[in-house]
Amino acid sequence: MSTYPNMQNQQTNIVRSEPLIARAEALKPRLSSREVGMRGLIEVQADPQALHGWRTKRIAGAEGLNERSFGKGDSAIVDFGDHRVGYLSLNVSPVGSPPDAPLKLKLTFGEMPVEMAEPFSSYDGWISSSWLQEETLFVDVLPARLELPRRYSFRYLKLEVLDTSQKYKVRFDSLRVRTVTSADASAVRPLESDDPMLAEIDRVSIRTLEDCMQDVFEDGPKRDRRLWLGDLRLQALANYETFRSSDLVKRCLYLFAGLPDEQGRVSANLFIEPKLIADDTYLYDYSLFFAASLFDYWEATGDRVALLELWPTARRQVESALEHVTDGLVKDSDSWWSFIDWNPDLNKQAPTQGVLIYVLKRALKLAEAVGGEEGATCAETWTEAVRQAEKAAVEQLWDAEQGFFVSGEARQVSWASQVWLALAETLPQEENRALLLRLLEKKPIVGMTTPYMVHHLVEALLVAGLREEAVRQLKTYWGGMIEDGADTFWELYDPQDKNFSPYGSHLINSYCHAWSCTPTYLIRRYGL
Amino acid sequence: MSTYPNMQNQQTNIVRSEPLIARAEALKPRLSSREVGMRGLIEVQADPQALHGWRTKRIAGAEGLNERSFGKGDSAIVDFGDHRVGYLSLNVSPVGSPPDAPLKLKLTFGEMPVEMAEPFSSYDGWISSSWLQEETLFVDVLPARLELPRRYSFRYLKLEVLDTSQKYKVRFDSLRVRTVTSADASAVRPLESDDPMLAEIDRVSIRTLEDCMQDVFEDGPKRDRRLWLGDLRLQALANYETFRSSDLVKRCLYLFAGLPDEQGRVSANLFIEPKLIADDTYLYDYSLFFAASLFDYWEATGDRVALLELWPTARRQVESALEHVTDGLVKDSDSWWSFIDWNPDLNKQAPTQGVLIYVLKRALKLAEAVGGEEGATCAETWTEAVRQAEKAAVEQLWDAEQGFFVSGEARQVSWASQVWLALAETLPQEENRALLLRLLEKKPIVGMTTPYMVHHLVEALLVAGLREEAVRQLKTYWGGMIEDGADTFWELYDPQDKNFSPYGSHLINSYCHAWSCTPTYLIRRYGL
Repeated sequence: MSTYPNMQNQQTNIVRSEPLIARAEALKPRLSSREVGMRGLIEVQADPQALHGWRTKRIAGAEGLNERSFGKGDSAIVDFGDHRVGYLSLNVSPVGSPPDAPLKLKLTFGEMPVEMAEPFSSYDGWISSSWLQEETLFVDVLPARLELPRRYSFRYLKLEVLDTSQKYKVRFDSLRVRTVTSADASAVRPLESDDPMLAEIDRVSIRTLEDCMQDVFEDGPKRDRRLWLGDLRLQALANYETFRSSDLVKRCLYLFAGLPDEQGRVSANLFIEPKLIADDTYLYDYSLFFAASLFDYWEATGDRVALLELWPTARRQVESALEHVTDGLVKDSDSWWSFIDWNPDLNKQAPTQGVLIYVLKRALKLAEAVGGEEGATCAETWTEAVRQAEKAAVEQLWDAEQGFFVSGEARQVSWASQVWLALAETLPQEENRALLLRLLEKKPIVGMTTPYMVHHLVEALLVAGLREEAVRQLKTYWGGMIEDGADTFWELYDPQDKNFSPYGSHLINSYCHAWSCTPTYLIRRYGL
Repeated sequence: MSTYPNMQNQQTNIVRSEPLIARAEALKPRLSSREVGMRGLIEVQADPQALHGWRTKRIAGAEGLNERSFGKGDSAIVDFGDHRVGYLSLNVSPVGSPPDAPLKLKLTFGEMPVEMAEPFSSYDGWISSSWLQEETLFVDVLPARLELPRRYSFRYLKLEVLDTSQKYKVRFDSLRVRTVTSADASAVRPLESDDPMLAEIDRVSIRTLEDCMQDVFEDGPKRDRRLWLGDLRLQALANYETFRSSDLVKRCLYLFAGLPDEQGRVSANLFIEPKLIADDTYLYDYSLFFAASLFDYWEATGDRVALLELWPTARRQVESALEHVTDGLVKDSDSWWSFIDWNPDLNKQAPTQGVLIYVLKRALKLAEAVGGEEGATCAETWTEAVRQAEKAAVEQLWDAEQGFFVSGEARQVSWASQVWLALAETLPQEENRALLLRLLEKKPIVGMTTPYMVHHLVEALLVAGLREEAVRQLKTYWGGMIEDGADTFWELYDPQDKNFSPYGSHLINSYCHAWSCTPTYLIRRYGL
């Protein structure tokens, strides 16, 4: 995700903890590489029925490229057969007279057909056009082996010869992608489910997670290529069920813990290069998720050393969140931001109340695990905080007439509010189940826009024992992405508005996005 | 220069002489480097009185750049104070929040203000747009030191930030050009002339030559960056009077001699990288100039070993040229091409006849120097060939009524025909002088378009003893370039049509061009 500028907070001072950062750096993974060649040539054709209005048509096998020569204005689209994250290299050779002018070559990389079909110059969204993956190269000496230094995230590559000279053309061959990941595919156990659709969803989930696992858990290898706490939490859950690289989770938790601000809050995301920097973005829900993620890590690994070293950070996030709570209720104010979902109409109060309760319940288990006087005190305090927060939710946010939680002054009824307060098990099990069934039936207008939000719906259904409904949602939503052509799962998918982008253009969306990789977790953890 | 496609000859087979090539490679010069910083910031302003309609205005010193921060759409034009050939490096640093998206940066390099003012996308000429010097870079990690791998030829650099993000801007500092040349400035003797204008013309000539002296004598460091025989001959003449790097001339002569075609002809130009290749372009005049260049080298150095090793190549060029001669006259046919000048209306027969006589007179001196039976035979044959060629010129090309040489079936009267037949001293001295004075007075319509051609006019005037007229031409033409803003002398300059380009746009012209560097030779050799 990208943060709106108004989410940022310029007045933060970071208090680095070198011992915690050193722990994280010692866990830096080695990336493994694989050489992948092209699979064929495609064309992109307009098709109103296809996602974004474009479908691909295979026009030649891998050998088809070598047979063509390219003069000024000629182009081809290469298909690498699946989503790839890595480094491109290729040979380019002259045909005809000796090259008497440089070659001017444009390369356009795309995760999706639309990136091959619609010119990047048409992009006019609010986040940077610099995310659109392209290069214009001048090659002074031919033949040449081009080894591009930047990492790209793509399946398709458009080669466009912008100019040669009247005396020569060029040929391309030996296109290679050196893929990179820190995930170890051999660690993944075979899936037990015998449902072929779930098996396919599981496979694509794992590919998505694999391509996001680099030096850290990235949110998306195309964009933002960055460690976000909200994504990390979900990646870690999927990772425990698949690649089991718990050291990478540990590394990321230590990185966040190593860079708190002077109030002790962890940032919503970190920059790793050129040096470790905490972004000046603080999100209420994301900070809290540090505690939830530590709980998940502890549960998955039983790593007591890490638990004790990271506990103060987790505790501080909870305490900081509680500062915005009055009489058990998260105040609806501008003094904090939650992300929750990419829905500009969404009031964040009630879903944030759900996040608070959800995290408090895990934080108090962390406190119990820590033990001693400090642990006992925290557990006691937070047990009371949960009681008050649940009471406040029921007394102040529950609209008995509608049978829904409402949010903010305008008493907004949204999917997000029901999902988070259900996932937090605010109501007794039977009422929780009834709430979710009512949600699925009534379909409030203020909907969900991201796989991140839909994940929480599906998990809430599973927690409420609504297994069939959960599987149906999973198949409809992630299965829908596969039907619409997903090689990896996307940052954004709204079946009602398939061109949706919070950034102003589907060109800039990320089509391999960490927070969308969770079906493998849901399928494997809940034995679907 | 660039060759028209129809100058090329696809059917050539090159017969490499490895011993000659090895000699050349052993003479490969070491390039010397110098670090040059920026001198200030400029703006380019429309001015109908200025060359190409643009003049520069200095708006800040070198420190002015560091003080500015650049967001999306911001730009600046940096002035490096003089023409530079070399490699650019610069620092770019973020300002504001941590960079949450790559920087997209465009760099445009220009030898002239017009390259800063008119967008390269407006270029629509017939030679490759890939010569226009620009780069679009994506910088993933900031701050960064950018070290551009390509060599550029420029004085001005436009920095354009195409995109950052809403959260950060950038600053630039420590811009450096690492200039490269194989010329040794310390070898140049002070000029004896006390004419300040000639001194300035001499200085700019030497700068031009210096920037064209690289691994080989290049025609122009912006375009074509290549070893052309016609340029080499003039560069060598200027070089003997200035940098005195006779080894570089020797290297280039051996390179041409090492790559004849199966008829023994030397190509008009050579590619040096990625390996030595003779271009498939053969020009009647350029091939002949191999013999003239060897004569000049022999005269400058007395290097008898090189004379004897290169003599067979020189001899073969002359013999090959004579194959197109009938009864002393170069046939006006499509079986050969001469360059002579960039004037599409020019008939090449008479000027080529002049080139032939000019070269024959030097070739027979080479033959005499070689001596022995072979030398004596050649000298005798070529003495007769000169006699016949001069006779044919006077009998068949001289139009007594007009007092001019005519060329081709249409009996065209051009500057080029008079200049070359005068420079070749086809007529007795008095008549030669009268011809040139008549030329200056009558000004035939078919004129001169390049400094290359004007050089031959000035030297013809000097040979004919018309010193005053020669100096006047020199000052008018090369002095005119200086008045029009030349830091180095240009590939093309037509005082009557200052936007002239044989390529369809003044954007693509080279503004530091070897064949324009000869005033230093003319001034110093003839003691002007």
